[in-house]
Parts: sequence; C-alpha cells; structure tokens
Amino acid sequence: MKLETKTARFTEPLYLESGRILEPYDITYETYGELNDDKSNVIIVPHALTGNHHAAGRYGNEAKPGWWDKFIGDGKTIDTNKYFVICTNNLGSCFGSTGPMSPNLPSDVPYRLDFPVLTISDIVKAQKILFESLGIFHVRAIIGGSLGGMQAICYAIEYPSFADIIIPMATTAYTRPWAIAVNKIGIESIRHDPGFKDGFYDPEVVKEQGLVGLAIGRMAGHLSFLNESSMNNKFGRHYTESDGLYDLFGRFEVERYLEYNGYNFSKNFDPLSYLYAVKTMNIFNAARGSDTLVEALANVTCELHLISFKGDVLFFPEEMKEVYDIMCQHGKEKHCTYLEVDSDLGHDAFLIEIDKFSDYVLKILGDK
Amino acid sequence: MKLETKTARFTEPLYLESGRILEPYDITYETYGELNDDKSNVIIVPHALTGNHHAAGRYGNEAKPGWWDKFIGDGKTIDTNKYFVICTNNLGSCFGSTGPMSPNLPSDVPYRLDFPVLTISDIVKAQKILFESLGIFHVRAIIGGSLGGMQAICYAIEYPSFADIIIPMATTAYTRPWAIAVNKIGIESIRHDPGFKDGFYDPEVVKEQGLVGLAIGRMAGHLSFLNESSMNNKFGRHYTESDGLYDLFGRFEVERYLEYNGYNFSKNFDPLSYLYAVKTMNIFNAARGSDTLVEALANVTCELHLISFKGDVLFFPEEMKEVYDIMCQHGKEKHCTYLEVDSDLGHDAFLIEIDKFSDYVLKILGDK
Repeated sequence: MKLETKTARFTEPLYLESGRILEPYDITYETYGELNDDKSNVIIVPHALTGNHHAAGRYGNEAKPGWWDKFIGDGKTIDTNKYFVICTNNLGSCFGSTGPMSPNLPSDVPYRLDFPVLTISDIVKAQKILFESLGIFHVRAIIGGSLGGMQAICYAIEYPSFADIIIPMATTAYTRPWAIAVNKIGIESIRHDPGFKDGFYDPEVVKEQGLVGLAIGRMAGHLSFLNESSMNNKFGRHYTESDGLYDLFGRFEVERYLEYNGYNFSKNFDPLSYLYAVKTMNIFNAARGSDTLVEALANVTCELHLISFKGDVLFFPEEMKEVYDIMCQHGKEKHCTYLEVDSDLGHDAFLIEIDKFSDYVLKILGDK
Repeated sequence: MKLETKTARFTEPLYLESGRILEPYDITYETYGELNDDKSNVIIVPHALTGNHHAAGRYGNEAKPGWWDKFIGDGKTIDTNKYFVICTNNLGSCFGSTGPMSPNLPSDVPYRLDFPVLTISDIVKAQKILFESLGIFHVRAIIGGSLGGMQAICYAIEYPSFADIIIPMATTAYTRPWAIAVNKIGIESIRHDPGFKDGFYDPEVVKEQGLVGLAIGRMAGHLSFLNESSMNNKFGRHYTESDGLYDLFGRFEVERYLEYNGYNFSKNFDPLSYLYAVKTMNIFNAARGSDTLVEALANVTCELHLISFKGDVLFFPEEMKEVYDIMCQHGKEKHCTYLEVDSDLGHDAFLIEIDKFSDYVLKILGDK
C-alpha cells in the first residue's frame, strides 16, 4: 500500500463560526493507495477526538500500525488497491495541523489560550479547502467514528453533494450532557493542575513528564470508551499481584489499566489541544444554523448509513437511531440505513470489532 | 419526632479484617423515635459512601433536613411513632466517628495515612458493638442504600439472626471494576493534588478552600449518581447564560452543576476520609470468607428484600438480581423478594423516589 504523509499550508483566511479568523494554517494529512485518473475513488476518513492522520499502515519499522489499520489497507474493507483514502489531522490537534501550540504567525509565539475555539463545521471547512487544493471536488465516501462521525454528519448536512456515501458510526448529531460531563473531568483536572500554569506550561516538560490533569481526564474518558460489561470481562475483580489488598493505594487491575493508559496518554498529547478538542466536541450540534435537527437533516441528499454499537456509553445507540428516524420522516429511507452492532466492547468497538460491520460497509460501497 | 445525637467511646480493641487493631474508637450516632420496653422496634439505617448519621429531622433551624428525611419520620414509611431508628456514622468517616483525621490516641496527632483500611465487615462489627452497648441484641430491620446496602448485605451474611428483615437497595454484593474505575478518578486526583501534601494537608485550610482533587473525584462520582437520561432531562443542552459559547472555558449547565456540587462537597468532606471510604467500597466482597457468593448467601436466614433502580449506572440492577437468583437457588424464595424500581433518576433515585418503593417497604414491615 502506498502511504504518504504531507503538510499543506493555506494562506487565505479561514473564517470560523465564532467570527474569528485563522490565517495562515497548516493541515497535515496522510493518504493510502493511489488517486485514479478521474479522481472518483476517494474515501475520506476523519479521525476521533485525540486521533491523528495516521489511520493505516506503518512508518518504517513502527511497532503499532495506524489506528484503523484493521479496516483500511490492501484487500481490507476499505481496499487501498481500489480506493485513495485520505485522513487529515484535525485543525486544533497537536500532530501537525495548526493548533493552540502552533506559532501565531508571523510571530514565533504559540497561540496557547489565544487560539480560537473551533467547531466541527470549521474543521470540515478546512478539510474541504485541502481537498480542493488537491483537485478533489467530490468523493466516493466519508466514513468516521466518534468525533470523526460528527464530521461525517456535518458533511452530509453542509455539503450534501460532496460525497456519494456517508457512514457515521459511534457518534451523535449533537453532544448530550452526559458526554459533556465526562469531558468536564478533564477540563477541571487540566485547568487546576499547577503544571498547566494557566496554559503557559513548557511543552517539552509536559511531553517528558506528562501532565497529571490530562491523565485524569483520559481516565474519565476510558469510563466512556469502555463500559461496565467490557470492564467485567476485561478485568473482573483481579487485584494487582504486587499490591497489598489492605494498602490504601493498592490497586485492582482496572486501576492499573487506567493509570497506564492515562499517564501514557498525557505524554503523547498536548493539554491545550485536548481542551480545544473537547470544547469542539461539547459544542457540536448538527442542527446549528437550522431551527431543528429535523430541518437540518432535510438537506441530506447523499446516502447516509448510520452505525451504532449496543454497549456504547459515550454516544448511545438511540442517538444514531434518532437521526435514522428523522431521515425516514423525510421519506429518505431509500438512501438511509441504520445498523446497531451487537457488541460488548463499548464505544471503542468501532476501532476493534471491524468484522461486525465490515460486510455492511462493503455492501454499501458496492464492493460485495 | 424525638431526635438524639450521641458519641460513644469504645476502649476494647476492634480487631480488623486486615489484621490491624483500632483502639480506642468513637462512634457517633443518631436516633429517631423511642425505644420500646422490649426493645423490639429497632430499625438500623446504615449510610452511603459520604453520608453521615444525620438521616432524618432537622437540628434547630437547619435549612436542609437529614438525607433520608422523606423516608424516616413521624407518619412516614419508616414511622418514628412506631420505630426506634438508629443511624451510625461509619467508622473512617469525618463526622464524629473515628477516622483518619482523628488523633491516634493517646497521642494528639492524627492517624492520617497510618489509619487502617476498613472493610464493610469492620464497619458493621463496630456498629454491632455499639448496639450491644445500648442493650440491643436483635433488630426488626436493617435498610440501607449504596454503601449502606453493602452493610445491610454484610449483616445478612455475617449476623443472620440479628435482624428479622434486611432491605439492601441500589447496591451490590461485590464491587465491580466499573465502580472501581469511577472511584479511581478521585483517588488519582486527590493523591496528585499538591494541596493534599501526601496526606499532610492542614484540615482547616482544606475545609475553607476545598481540595480541587476531591472536587474532581466528586464530579466523577456524579457521573455514576446520575445517568445519561437523567442528565438529558435535568440539563438538556442548556448553556450557562453568562458564558460565551466560543469561550474555551464557557460552560453548559451540566458543567456548572458539576462544578457547584464538586467544589461544595470538597469543603464539606475530608480528603483522607474519602480515600478510605472508596477503598472500603472497592474491596467490598460479601463472598470474602466463603468460597463463593453462593456459599456466602447460604448463611442468610432472615428475610432479604432487594431493591434496584432501572437507571442505576453505579450498581446495575443485575447486581441485585444476581443475589436474588442465588437466594432462589438456595430455595429461600419464601423469605426473599426482588423489586426493580422503574426510574430515570439513576443511582440517586434511592434518596429521591421514595414513593416508588414506600409501599413495598411498608408491606415487608407488615405496616400495610
């Protein structure tokens, strides 16, 4: 599979929903496979909250492949022998695209808290500008989970003729208070971490030591990525062997898992990018700009296929089902379907249980 | 209603499950109503994780009554015209009973991290010693929710002839990894809060300013006290009026609620008591001492009536149902019943929706 990673700079102002302007800005992106002559084989894969543009394949002798490598590749569901797949790093992230720790050009001082709050619409708008710069004005499909699914829904409503097919999964049309509450843990723990220094932390120090507040936010995130049943299966009541049962800070295996993943994450993600990303998630509302979601979804003319996961406790199945029901209300059931995947793995299932929705996606793409 | 608050000191050593000894120790407790001549009208009401002995009534012109005031009082479900109700502050708490910030007598230096880890069995054992000191060797009923429900289950297994009737609600027979994961947020955020000073904080300072780490732990707790549906009903997507939508730290109403409750709580509860209480919850396993829960429940000879709440996402209904199923397996269905209350309010329902289980409790007590 041909894999390329690039960064493009755009110097035209990007007008944001907030009324603010981003100018200039970079977008880092990765492509898999080859663009065909009539540019008709493009699939867009937007990433989740803390994801990045490295969706598939391996760099050199990298131990872990891209985050959706089970799904995208030669001979896989999204077959890179056939499709040209693009994954762009979201604006606001910390993996190459312009974010809060990027220099506020022409100065070399990072934006930090002066960085503008971005909406899903802003992120999608910037992506579209990138695609147009590549000569891509129409794509075969957009497939994304979680915050990537929000982007997919946004494309369906705001650019209804841009894609033939849109497949949002494990996501919602508007973020509910439950998900906002989960995110709140991270917001408070980062803000109050003295290492955060009100946003004026040294990024090198944070990268080396991690920021406890970010780790704690991530642990809260894991509550919503997993669920009670997946935790029962994964950890049971196993106690960490080296810890004493009656030691105040002795740990169950589930606690060790949270510590490991939380603290690891805090060394690999930027605290300000995290705050901006959860803000983007929190204020996502596909109905903004319309009176209601019903009105907003009336715009959708492409095929819209919705996938939810039974045990998802971040974005509950009924949130995708609501979108499907409204589409049917509009008489669009001919080009809208809904699949609730029977899964015990919670929100993370969209990254893991590919085999449970692979056939569904293949049929939609007309590849089976 | 006659209300009395007292503290009793015990100088005989209390032998703990951990092998450690607590000596001497105080237990603060509150009573409602009057003990009848043959001491046959006692109902015990153990409290939840961060609760206290003030279950009902008001002190002087106190604005808010005790935490189960809707349930306990003259003419209420637990009618204090008829019953003598006792609520004891759990050992390890910070409201009068001996806890980590109590002096390690005969010195006047607080235990802090030298305080022993307590189990539910230890807490119940100390309570029984208190009751015996009051001349009470048998009670009519024990009714408790959440951590109070764990105590109720513990009584049923370890002191099967002590009560006629035991009613655990919104609880479990052993804490699952999900609840442990929720608690982990608080453990990490308290431990790493510089104001915690590795347990050597100044309690006066913490009381005045609150401890951010404790507030964050409490916010995570609220995720499990409420649930996605109760949050939808309570907050929707309402945004705080005074905050800007595109301000990074602008808040939805659900966030304001979490802040308010979290920071308030952190001024009213002791961080070390919190750590010890969640440890007690985490390591609770009614089967400890037996090979299995099935074997442990074989001991139960009193009436056991279990109440769960449909939307409880801290202790899920299936956790109570499992206890009921095992009781039936033992052929004890004649003195065991199970009620799943249809509620949208989540775990907190046991404190709020009294009317949904009041009749059930009245019938069990023979009062209707």
